[in-house]
Amino acid sequence: MADHLTLLTDRRDRYVAELRDFVRIPSVSSLPDHQDDVRAAAAWTRDRLAQAGLEHAEVLETGAQPAVYADYLHAPGAPTVLIYAHFDVQPASRSDGWDADPFDPVFAEDRVYGRGSSDDKGNLLIPVQAVEALLADGGSLPVNVKFLLEGQEEIGSPTMEGFVCRHAERLRCDLAVSADGSQWSETEPGLWLSLRGLCSLQIDVTGPARDVHSGTYGGAIHNPIHALVRILDSMRSPDGTVLVDGFFDGAPELSAADRAELARIPFDERRFLDALGAQGLFGEPGYGTRARQWRRPTLEINGIWGGFQGEGVKTVLPSRAHAKITCRLVGDQDPDRVREAIAGHVRRHADPAVSVEVRSLGSAGRPYTIPAGHPGNRAARAVLAELYGTEPYAIASGGSIPILGMFERYLNAKTVIFAFALEDEGAHGPNEFFRLASYERGRVAWCRLLDRLAGMAA
Amino acid sequence: MADHLTLLTDRRDRYVAELRDFVRIPSVSSLPDHQDDVRAAAAWTRDRLAQAGLEHAEVLETGAQPAVYADYLHAPGAPTVLIYAHFDVQPASRSDGWDADPFDPVFAEDRVYGRGSSDDKGNLLIPVQAVEALLADGGSLPVNVKFLLEGQEEIGSPTMEGFVCRHAERLRCDLAVSADGSQWSETEPGLWLSLRGLCSLQIDVTGPARDVHSGTYGGAIHNPIHALVRILDSMRSPDGTVLVDGFFDGAPELSAADRAELARIPFDERRFLDALGAQGLFGEPGYGTRARQWRRPTLEINGIWGGFQGEGVKTVLPSRAHAKITCRLVGDQDPDRVREAIAGHVRRHADPAVSVEVRSLGSAGRPYTIPAGHPGNRAARAVLAELYGTEPYAIASGGSIPILGMFERYLNAKTVIFAFALEDEGAHGPNEFFRLASYERGRVAWCRLLDRLAGMAA
Repeated sequence: MADHLTLLTDRRDRYVAELRDFVRIPSVSSLPDHQDDVRAAAAWTRDRLAQAGLEHAEVLETGAQPAVYADYLHAPGAPTVLIYAHFDVQPASRSDGWDADPFDPVFAEDRVYGRGSSDDKGNLLIPVQAVEALLADGGSLPVNVKFLLEGQEEIGSPTMEGFVCRHAERLRCDLAVSADGSQWSETEPGLWLSLRGLCSLQIDVTGPARDVHSGTYGGAIHNPIHALVRILDSMRSPDGTVLVDGFFDGAPELSAADRAELARIPFDERRFLDALGAQGLFGEPGYGTRARQWRRPTLEINGIWGGFQGEGVKTVLPSRAHAKITCRLVGDQDPDRVREAIAGHVRRHADPAVSVEVRSLGSAGRPYTIPAGHPGNRAARAVLAELYGTEPYAIASGGSIPILGMFERYLNAKTVIFAFALEDEGAHGPNEFFRLASYERGRVAWCRLLDRLAGMAA
Repeated sequence: MADHLTLLTDRRDRYVAELRDFVRIPSVSSLPDHQDDVRAAAAWTRDRLAQAGLEHAEVLETGAQPAVYADYLHAPGAPTVLIYAHFDVQPASRSDGWDADPFDPVFAEDRVYGRGSSDDKGNLLIPVQAVEALLADGGSLPVNVKFLLEGQEEIGSPTMEGFVCRHAERLRCDLAVSADGSQWSETEPGLWLSLRGLCSLQIDVTGPARDVHSGTYGGAIHNPIHALVRILDSMRSPDGTVLVDGFFDGAPELSAADRAELARIPFDERRFLDALGAQGLFGEPGYGTRARQWRRPTLEINGIWGGFQGEGVKTVLPSRAHAKITCRLVGDQDPDRVREAIAGHVRRHADPAVSVEVRSLGSAGRPYTIPAGHPGNRAARAVLAELYGTEPYAIASGGSIPILGMFERYLNAKTVIFAFALEDEGAHGPNEFFRLASYERGRVAWCRLLDRLAGMAA
């Protein structure tokens, strides 16, 4: 082990430089103007995999944002591990509150600031660098390795289901390991045992055929903003409970054991709120914050717009108003059925004086779980306990990685989440950053994980 | 009379050309980037008044968008008439649904299309051209005339109250006549007997200090869009009745005579809805459409925004959400008290897990009425009946002209509304236009009105 660890230390500056280069590619999968950048990030990633010594490095078409594949299959009799991460990022612009250009990384206090630094470009590079170090100077890998890196995670992987199904033979593995995820804190590890599912939709309300004068027509024809506000307000009670008929179908109640497990996770309310700058806790009665984040389904408006948004006053009764919604799902909730339940609710709450459309935005994924005692998790747990000097917490993600359900369905493989982001790093918000200490520790952890996975039954 | 009428006919092309030039100045009072254009429109207007033969033409400072004054006071013993109009316009851009550049007028089918053509630049030029024709070739005016043209009507005249108060002596008159207003149809005249008042406010809701991941934090902290939607939805019942405590203070109930008067006004529901492209009528139960438009107060959301508005999905729980509201007021409703009533309602309906601010947007004006039998209205009624061959309907405006209340308060003068826009001309919306036939008829009407007003007691 000594050789590759020395190498990892010696190459530290190079790794930092390549993270900077990678973050500089504004690979925003949700924005039409950035599709070439997503492709540039795919090509960059393919080249990086080849440089690391991996074979068959290739950009693969998916019908939308491409994926990248590479492998190194020279450990006969050993298990095959599919390493997953994504090279696309959330949108970001100075006007969202960034202190600097989100795509021109800034290094300060052992952190790198930039969109995608934490989610997921830093995490993606870690196993590439680990494998590279192990292969250096005629070295070998203790397991067979396949990389599958995608470019549409941040938009819910709309075309990856067909892709995984088509390429099932090439992707076949004994275990997947996701380099998208997080640890608990700088000093305490965590092991994700579940992720919530996802569905997405947009509501478009149309009133008059064009914007009209709100003095002349206000009060006499319906205003699509008011109609939209009524629909949206009807979806949740004041305490945040979702009121849509059928929404909770398939969402399991928490058992006493579930609640006991959650109670073991430390939670400092003041620190939680301060980190977010939020005024107070909020959410479904009868559940604590961790249950609300990890184990209960949600319905959140991600965006709303209509009418005049400039300075001052424009006395307009607008023609149209819009809202975007995503839901997080748990247990056996089905994304399509939840979206249909919401569409039905919208139709029942739409005033006949306006017209209302509901459409899917494509992002969808089933909830995902992996047992704590899965052999892959046992290996990950041992590595983390050793590295941090303490047992990992059994944690979960409120977020979604839709492809994990596809690995289960088409490859019959569970996925261990093994990644080194931390919750306070501002993923999806302004001033996202990644800790360089996590970047270093992650490389060592991945080398040890691959070693331990070699002992797992192939 | 024959001389100036011949002149008005001969100069028709010049009048069309100058309306085009005037509309080309994008004098949008609400937008910071267009303040120079508002000043350019003021200068253009001052020069036009001087060119018409008026004296003391001057741009006057108001502390915000300027006003323009001119006079011709050579009819001793005759009444003094203050002619009012505005040279500022609503915002407009191609993306709002205009078929052409809103500030590059298009002429088609006896119409001129462009922002401000109907509201109020065409109407503003009419009395200037009428006065010019009367003064041509050593002619004279039957009354003393003062012009006061303002540049902030579209934003509710926030600094005009102080201006009118300060300049009360210079503006002193026996009657004001507003060249901002409308007729009933191309063949039927109308006489406005009231305008609604106005107040305006913005609601800003803040949740977390920055945008956060809606998967990670959704369901566990409050989403400012949901909090805003709750506040807004609480303000009106599903049928559009305003539910804010104290909102209706000072709003008179309609008398049987009021209702009978409204019932005399023709109303074709199908035509009304088709013209707007609206799905159906809507509004406070117990009132017809004309009552809802003219005689009842309203609360309308003019704009709403927060979170992600782009294509596709961004799984964000935003930091902030905003809405703009204007109310139309009637009777003795007080703009400041209505705004305070709404602010109190917002505070009572704000969830403690978010912070909420309510602020005035400046636009405010009291409701305005003028008796049907006022001597000014009797003169206007006679001119209109003569020109159209039918008696004008007693109509009203759902909109507001805040300065009319100031003329009443500081100059002790009522205002006759004498203008030639029509309701279908798209004021405040895309593809605003003005009928050239109205432009011509207006000039003749103004010459006759000034003549008739000479007979009014000074």
